[in-house]
Amino acid sequence: MVDKRARFGSVPRSVSRRSMLAGAAAAGFVVPAVMTGAGAGPAAAAPVRVTAAAPKIRRVTVYAEELAGGQFGYGLKPGEATVPGPILEIVEGDTLEITLVNNTDRRLSIHPHGVEYDTTSDGSPMNDSFNEPGEVRKYTWRTQGSVEAEDGRWLPGSAGYWHYHDHAMNGEHGTEGIRTGLYGALIVRRPGDLLPQRQYTVVFNDMTINNKMAPDIPVIEANLGERVEFIAIGHGNTFHTFHLHAHRWAENRTGYLEGPNDPSRVIDNRDLNPGDSFGFQVEAGHGVGPGVWMYHCHVQFHADGGMVGVFLVRNADGSMPEGAQEALDRYHDHGPHHPHQQHGGH
Amino acid sequence: MVDKRARFGSVPRSVSRRSMLAGAAAAGFVVPAVMTGAGAGPAAAAPVRVTAAAPKIRRVTVYAEELAGGQFGYGLKPGEATVPGPILEIVEGDTLEITLVNNTDRRLSIHPHGVEYDTTSDGSPMNDSFNEPGEVRKYTWRTQGSVEAEDGRWLPGSAGYWHYHDHAMNGEHGTEGIRTGLYGALIVRRPGDLLPQRQYTVVFNDMTINNKMAPDIPVIEANLGERVEFIAIGHGNTFHTFHLHAHRWAENRTGYLEGPNDPSRVIDNRDLNPGDSFGFQVEAGHGVGPGVWMYHCHVQFHADGGMVGVFLVRNADGSMPEGAQEALDRYHDHGPHHPHQQHGGH
Amino acid sequence: MVDKRARFGSVPRSVSRRSMLAGAAAAGFVVPAVMTGAGAGPAAAAPVRVTAAAPKIRRVTVYAEELAGGQFGYGLKPGEATVPGPILEIVEGDTLEITLVNNTDRRLSIHPHGVEYDTTSDGSPMNDSFNEPGEVRKYTWRTQGSVEAEDGRWLPGSAGYWHYHDHAMNGEHGTEGIRTGLYGALIVRRPGDLLPQRQYTVVFNDMTINNKMAPDIPVIEANLGERVEFIAIGHGNTFHTFHLHAHRWAENRTGYLEGPNDPSRVIDNRDLNPGDSFGFQVEAGHGVGPGVWMYHCHVQFHADGGMVGVFLVRNADGSMPEGAQEALDRYHDHGPHHPHQQHGGH
Repeated sequence: MVDKRARFGSVPRSVSRRSMLAGAAAAGFVVPAVMTGAGAGPAAAAPVRVTAAAPKIRRVTVYAEELAGGQFGYGLKPGEATVPGPILEIVEGDTLEITLVNNTDRRLSIHPHGVEYDTTSDGSPMNDSFNEPGEVRKYTWRTQGSVEAEDGRWLPGSAGYWHYHDHAMNGEHGTEGIRTGLYGALIVRRPGDLLPQRQYTVVFNDMTINNKMAPDIPVIEANLGERVEFIAIGHGNTFHTFHLHAHRWAENRTGYLEGPNDPSRVIDNRDLNPGDSFGFQVEAGHGVGPGVWMYHCHVQFHADGGMVGVFLVRNADGSMPEGAQEALDRYHDHGPHHPHQQHGGH
Repeated sequence: MVDKRARFGSVPRSVSRRSMLAGAAAAGFVVPAVMTGAGAGPAAAAPVRVTAAAPKIRRVTVYAEELAGGQFGYGLKPGEATVPGPILEIVEGDTLEITLVNNTDRRLSIHPHGVEYDTTSDGSPMNDSFNEPGEVRKYTWRTQGSVEAEDGRWLPGSAGYWHYHDHAMNGEHGTEGIRTGLYGALIVRRPGDLLPQRQYTVVFNDMTINNKMAPDIPVIEANLGERVEFIAIGHGNTFHTFHLHAHRWAENRTGYLEGPNDPSRVIDNRDLNPGDSFGFQVEAGHGVGPGVWMYHCHVQFHADGGMVGVFLVRNADGSMPEGAQEALDRYHDHGPHHPHQQHGGH
Repeated sequence: MVDKRARFGSVPRSVSRRSMLAGAAAAGFVVPAVMTGAGAGPAAAAPVRVTAAAPKIRRVTVYAEELAGGQFGYGLKPGEATVPGPILEIVEGDTLEITLVNNTDRRLSIHPHGVEYDTTSDGSPMNDSFNEPGEVRKYTWRTQGSVEAEDGRWLPGSAGYWHYHDHAMNGEHGTEGIRTGLYGALIVRRPGDLLPQRQYTVVFNDMTINNKMAPDIPVIEANLGERVEFIAIGHGNTFHTFHLHAHRWAENRTGYLEGPNDPSRVIDNRDLNPGDSFGFQVEAGHGVGPGVWMYHCHVQFHADGGMVGVFLVRNADGSMPEGAQEALDRYHDHGPHHPHQQHGGH
């Protein structure tokens, strides 16, 4: 049961779960399929890992739609498109068949990173792979595990924190589609991987986070000790660095160390440039306690300009920690207009 | 025989091989020494790995020359300079002695990354290490394997995907030499490393790839299943990210995994900023089949502006895959003028 | 004794050692605590590694002060602030209590990367964690080793090459404090880690190195064979790449390889963007000999503009190598005015 939830598939559950957290979903954070157990709240979910199982063909319909303010989004149901789009999640060996319904009047496509597809699923105009306005088109993404090469080295498998995005709106590279919101996270897991209790997609897209700026970026939240997964994606024309306060992760495939001798660098700040993506899990508040923790672009004028969000770590019982509301209130004063004036006292 | 070909040395073979692929060579891709077996086509070459052998002193003469359009290049024979320059390839333990002949009227040098040299081979004006116009000067690069430090940790050896470039034309840092084409790939292999069947150097140099822009960037090509090595180098003043469609590699020394528990991140998009370099091998079309696959800078306005090339994966017998010519034709329509206008139907 | 020196603590020793190298210290390079043995010169120090010991609470007072020219700095004694600030160094498990004395008329704070702290030590205005002018405030940073997660993977420990900086001067993110010098290195070591004989903090802060430009950047120096540690930190608004001539390191936590099969990439050039940091040790002149070696930003116009320093590797006995003085003299001619004019002969 748990293993199946780790895979894609469960769209109806995902949607019902999203309706349970309507505020977050509406605000652009999509609650993951792995979190959609029958009525189990995040805090109640036991830590689980992906177990090996026969590869499956997963099928999903994705709707591309125009949103208010010239934005576009992908969604799993008509009228439910979001920016970023839904987290798509499969296990090495699985195939994901995406039926993309283009409910807009623009040419667009869906192009994935990390997985395998033939040229007809490339999503690029060069390969004649896109949806005209109103068109329905199927894209097939395949995955596989690492395989031993002839000499003892291994060809890398598909597992990773990847992403997908438009590659066809107005031009050859989807620049306008990406700018206006046509992007999302794609996770390929490997048997043995830990599953999170919460997931958040954070896209640094030009000078925005998920096409928003402070203080309008919705609050990310978790209860103390929950395993929270961040999928960070870079897009657009600008270089960025992602910094999360008071939490750290390993700079490798999973963000965990494979053992005490794993040489991976441990970090809390990482370059996040266009087309790149990475992910990691943290135990919310591990070693630091509950509270409101910033994440932001560490390029100073980007942070000052509003590329700042907050990660609210509640008490283990879900209640607000002391001082957290005051911090949230201060965050809501944050904006592009603040950096050049001295704040008052405290 | 095979092992020796993995090492530097075989300049005449390299040249003869290059004459076999004159189109690619003329277009700026230099065919590697390891590919220069006696008449063996790439598809016929058996997979091979570097085996341990006594370190050797390799000697090569490099000619720096002015090319048309204010470009400069390095070459292995007079009149054969290219942009990028030839791939120089040795094995840990080898020494490479380069006699640099400056056939231009400008001050210039050759400065390597990753290898060992004394100050007279630094290639920098600060160390009085450069060629005046017309001057012939020897530069010596040494390498060594990893050695155990006193405490059980290991000092890193020389193996890596490195590069070389001018460090003296007009100023202290070779800025003008690099801008105009004086750069190339340097590979130091380790016994046990897999050898490729094709090699391509891809240099993101300001807003160009190998000092060219789409659609003038020559087609990279291989037959389905061939092991193709990319050596990616960043230069200039701009930040970039390198993305290859439908292929992935591990973010470590070789691009392969050392085993199923190697924690390395698997990627298909990577930062490629000035002075940085990395390399990897893919099995052409592995899991995705033949076709025309883009590689490009994922900074959107760089891609739209022409930082886009194509990787043609032919059928295993070398014939053109279905749809490939149409894709190449569409690529040849690509240019800096396209991004802001909607393409027609398909 | 040696083990204890690896930890923080020894502030008086550090200061006395700094007075022994007054030129370097005054110029902005802070001599590390680990170097402060009773009278032992660097060359005499035996190679040592961190051994396991009971975690300790370390206490230090840091003074934030205004310096000449609108700069600010942190120091370990009143009147001794430097840019960058002192290297703070502890071992996994230790707690560091910092009493920050704000001797300026500006709001400011101290915010660390990589370590653990509750919201009152966050250093951010959002968490009401900063010093008003003249205020004394305590910040507590905790650390821990890697711990096994429930599934066999490991939560990353605190060990790393981190940094600290202001997060409160004029705005929400310390932009003005960072610009004017309020930053420094923070090292958390792990039992078994090698200790260096020399340490240097190199901060790429906008278009400067440690808020200076060539030729005013003080010379980094060591004797041939000494183990020299670089802690590189990025700050400001610009992207950079750090290149060190003739030395290389592994791109992992320590810069060493864990063994001959460690897959880490070996590099001599690395991205160094705002908020990022890394560190490594080299054996000065290993395989290349003594001499003057440049380190610089490899973004060409940054190098030409003065983001260049020199690493003087003296002979093992501390004497000047042949040609070194001439190279230093040439470096002292370097400046922002040079790149566009051809240098004379040699």
